[in-house]
Amino acid sequence: MFKIPDHQVAGHQASNGMMGPVVDDSGLFFKPLQKDERGSKEVAFYESLASNIEVPDKIRAYFPTFHGTQLIPASDGSGLHPHLVLQDLVSSYKNPSIMDIKIGSRTWYPQASEEYIQRCFKKDKETSSLALGFRLSGLQVHVSKEAGYWKPDRKCFQNSSAEIVQNVLKKFASSNISADSDAGDLDFDCAFAPSVYGGSNGILAQLLELKSWFEDQKFYHFYSCSVLMVWDKEPNAAAAIKLVDFAHVVDSKGAIDHNFLGGLCSLIKFISEILTDHHACPNKPCSDSNSNCNGDSSDR
Amino acid sequence: MFKIPDHQVAGHQASNGMMGPVVDDSGLFFKPLQKDERGSKEVAFYESLASNIEVPDKIRAYFPTFHGTQLIPASDGSGLHPHLVLQDLVSSYKNPSIMDIKIGSRTWYPQASEEYIQRCFKKDKETSSLALGFRLSGLQVHVSKEAGYWKPDRKCFQNSSAEIVQNVLKKFASSNISADSDAGDLDFDCAFAPSVYGGSNGILAQLLELKSWFEDQKFYHFYSCSVLMVWDKEPNAAAAIKLVDFAHVVDSKGAIDHNFLGGLCSLIKFISEILTDHHACPNKPCSDSNSNCNGDSSDR
Repeated sequence: MFKIPDHQVAGHQASNGMMGPVVDDSGLFFKPLQKDERGSKEVAFYESLASNIEVPDKIRAYFPTFHGTQLIPASDGSGLHPHLVLQDLVSSYKNPSIMDIKIGSRTWYPQASEEYIQRCFKKDKETSSLALGFRLSGLQVHVSKEAGYWKPDRKCFQNSSAEIVQNVLKKFASSNISADSDAGDLDFDCAFAPSVYGGSNGILAQLLELKSWFEDQKFYHFYSCSVLMVWDKEPNAAAAIKLVDFAHVVDSKGAIDHNFLGGLCSLIKFISEILTDHHACPNKPCSDSNSNCNGDSSDR
Repeated sequence: MFKIPDHQVAGHQASNGMMGPVVDDSGLFFKPLQKDERGSKEVAFYESLASNIEVPDKIRAYFPTFHGTQLIPASDGSGLHPHLVLQDLVSSYKNPSIMDIKIGSRTWYPQASEEYIQRCFKKDKETSSLALGFRLSGLQVHVSKEAGYWKPDRKCFQNSSAEIVQNVLKKFASSNISADSDAGDLDFDCAFAPSVYGGSNGILAQLLELKSWFEDQKFYHFYSCSVLMVWDKEPNAAAAIKLVDFAHVVDSKGAIDHNFLGGLCSLIKFISEILTDHHACPNKPCSDSNSNCNGDSSDR
């Protein structure tokens, strides 16, 4: 009945006998409650969100649907364990390309312990979080039925420059990458950028709608929370974003979540440049499906 | 010829024999170059800005006009010292109300020394910077010819809650405060809020124009930089914002300044709520010049 998810790109994973999330075949995702306060804090957030009538429906749709908690067998064989019961965000996709992007230049909240702050602080400095306001936490890009997915090791992109991060975002929407692609190489064509990132329902439009809410909302501050971007080459598989991971959501104390908002605006700028920056595509805009996005065709 | 400015609310001040800025009677402000790299970095920023043709004129107008550097007698009597020659931002106001707001939840830049980072980190946690994304660095509000200015000690508002900071922002645009007002009391009427903060040329509109630029620009990251808000009750003395203090501007490394932008959006939310939040003025909107902004007239 329960099985290990096929398409998890970040977070604790139920492999090698570890406790991790499982899914069923009805479209539910079961996330084990972490034993310290993180588990109870994530439940408390989902319960608060469910009862908060001031969150507009269009914004609520960016969060996984919450179906309470349930005692089910843990994936590590240790017996029954409480799990969050959530919508499986990728069950409706056949070959999902997925990116998990942790938002915010700071992943720690002011009330956290000194030890926790120092640990996060170090990670934020070592990765792109501090410089760019976000970091790529995990990704897979569908290449083809035969080749499967490009699923680079996170070491290859996490402590990266703006240029490498931009390359990875371009590869996420390209038709010509290989499964053993390198995060730093320039083999991408941005062929799917207009349909995945662009358009009135594309990822950029969704990020901008989320941004408007963050400019206004003073309910929650989201630390160490990710934007998940999912799309699929299948027809009728719309590109979508969702927010995930709420173990470190805290009260706003009267201000907007400037840390999340700043990082979100930075991501938005990266993505909007893929759609508009003609420097990156000197001959043709990226919206041309045959364009050469790095402008250096002699490399191929 | 040179004299100590009448209306400086933050930063090093030329009093008690210290070296600080001086002004002349032609509308120039002379800021002594700090002897360490801060001085040369601030000059380098002004020079870069002056030659950067991609900065729109309407944005350039938010920076003090730069007239180079000049050797003039230091205010501490130590002899000739190099000074930045800048526009005196308040010389055209008779009785300026001024607020200096340091923007960003983080005042240190990644490349700074560990000792500098730790010092800023501590200050950001102790003040409202970390929680709100900005802190009030200094202020004066003109009360009347007889009473002079309300110029509270920065201890009273710098490490404050969102509520106190909001009160101070309301007092900044009120007609009924006293020179010995307390940052925490509720004696304010927001009488000038519509003309100072609101309108198509008011402070909110200016902050929003600056925000649009920060969503896009990837030239500079501004650490420990302030927005200065100035206005005067005199007719024809328009409310204005300026950016000041550029000793800690660094290259963007390919991303927008998410730290400054997040803090700026937080400040914008505070100010827009003064104009629109009817909870703060239950009986009348703040745009009524006789309204009672705290909704508790029994206190008076």
